[in-house]
Amino acid sequence: MNQALRAGRIATKNEEKIKKLLDEVGLMIKDIPMENTPPETGAIIYRKIYEITDNNDPYKEIKAKNISHALHLYPKLKQKVDESDDRLLTAIRLAVAGNVIDLGISKEFNITKDVEKLLHQEFAIFDYELFKKELEKTDEILYIGDNSGEAVFDKILIEEIGKPVTFVVREIPIINDVTKKEAKQIGIDKIAKVISSGTTAPGTILGLCNDDFIRKFKNADMIISKGQGNYEGLSNIYRSIFFLLKVKCPIIARNVGVKENDIILKGMNIK
Amino acid sequence: MNQALRAGRIATKNEEKIKKLLDEVGLMIKDIPMENTPPETGAIIYRKIYEITDNNDPYKEIKAKNISHALHLYPKLKQKVDESDDRLLTAIRLAVAGNVIDLGISKEFNITKDVEKLLHQEFAIFDYELFKKELEKTDEILYIGDNSGEAVFDKILIEEIGKPVTFVVREIPIINDVTKKEAKQIGIDKIAKVISSGTTAPGTILGLCNDDFIRKFKNADMIISKGQGNYEGLSNIYRSIFFLLKVKCPIIARNVGVKENDIILKGMNIK
Repeated sequence: MNQALRAGRIATKNEEKIKKLLDEVGLMIKDIPMENTPPETGAIIYRKIYEITDNNDPYKEIKAKNISHALHLYPKLKQKVDESDDRLLTAIRLAVAGNVIDLGISKEFNITKDVEKLLHQEFAIFDYELFKKELEKTDEILYIGDNSGEAVFDKILIEEIGKPVTFVVREIPIINDVTKKEAKQIGIDKIAKVISSGTTAPGTILGLCNDDFIRKFKNADMIISKGQGNYEGLSNIYRSIFFLLKVKCPIIARNVGVKENDIILKGMNIK
Repeated sequence: MNQALRAGRIATKNEEKIKKLLDEVGLMIKDIPMENTPPETGAIIYRKIYEITDNNDPYKEIKAKNISHALHLYPKLKQKVDESDDRLLTAIRLAVAGNVIDLGISKEFNITKDVEKLLHQEFAIFDYELFKKELEKTDEILYIGDNSGEAVFDKILIEEIGKPVTFVVREIPIINDVTKKEAKQIGIDKIAKVISSGTTAPGTILGLCNDDFIRKFKNADMIISKGQGNYEGLSNIYRSIFFLLKVKCPIIARNVGVKENDIILKGMNIK
């Protein structure tokens, strides 16, 4: 309901439409099972938002602003990598910092301040040695993106990885998540292959993904998954994945075994 | 929905019941007109909370804790009045400070800190001269209470008023609002006549009030109304009332013509 109200207010100024949206989302709640992951519920609710407000990309301007702000920071962020003792580590830290810029969850943010803070925050789970070992062995990486501003930070990590990367985006605009359009704006298509997972949810829900992605997901040597939405969709699936994210809610914190606001690089099912 | 979830979690640990509550409150939204005041909606939603959780006073322990905390502060607060240059003014400031202790709206609070801050906060609207003039003229006061912890602070103002006071409480437990039970715990029945307005809403909605209160409300010389819930119910009615409250949401702020978090003593329709 909060997301519907927030996105509704961004999508339209028409109070009657906002009331209609709340009425209809209210009616939908009983059909949403308790077992649903937030991205699954998000997909259903955003479809309703688009339908009632006649706006199928309410976060368009916000995404553009976030990307522009992050691209403006990009040279400074690259400099941080250049000046660091461990380029890959700094790039991983920046990729987590990018995960903070999530308007789907938090209302207020200050990119520059958060970046500085996150560059010095301890990881609650940090499978960095495992990550480096896997990275060395692998020929190519499937990198699952999350939100749009964050993808500028992902670009920096992809550049440091130094191996062929396939960058995975959402099929349609959903909250502020990255689609092909934003990936191109950021120039990720110049350094990686960009594909859509086919998902219409703010997370990688395999049941909503296309066959091509599911095949790639099954066969990939190494997978990096960014953010909570993807974690929620993929953490119960048995295959090796590195999850890189900031934990943004108490439920995920409990599931991972860390505290809210912790940052993690967690290798799951790594052989 | 937020209130239903928050009160539901306080009322029961049974997640199935909480899901049922959200399902049913969701279904109710379409029948709640946009014109409803929050207390009117609150009354409907809390009835559902009581029904589904089998708990008709979820805030019982929280109220008891608030009252006990405030009663513990009471001697110090009285001392502040004793040491002040203007006893009535200090008592009014304390009565507003009490209005901060509202768990129906704010999650976190720190009574002592807030009291100190509010004793020095400027009023955005302060009809104090008018208030004193009316108080001098009147033979008795109808004082409409708000939440339970706050009533300890109201007691101090009632003691300073020095004229017969009728203290008005809610008919049944609703959020953390004061009922006859809490008024007695605080000892207000020792210094004032305590009556119920008959309302089952977290605000004085005349349509829900009993005849006796409505008669008293119409004929009272002077009325003091505490808090936002009472303001929402009574501010559109043409009769003289002094509203004493902290403005806790942007909608009331716009309505009053002040900013959120402002405190006001506003005389309305005073002849």
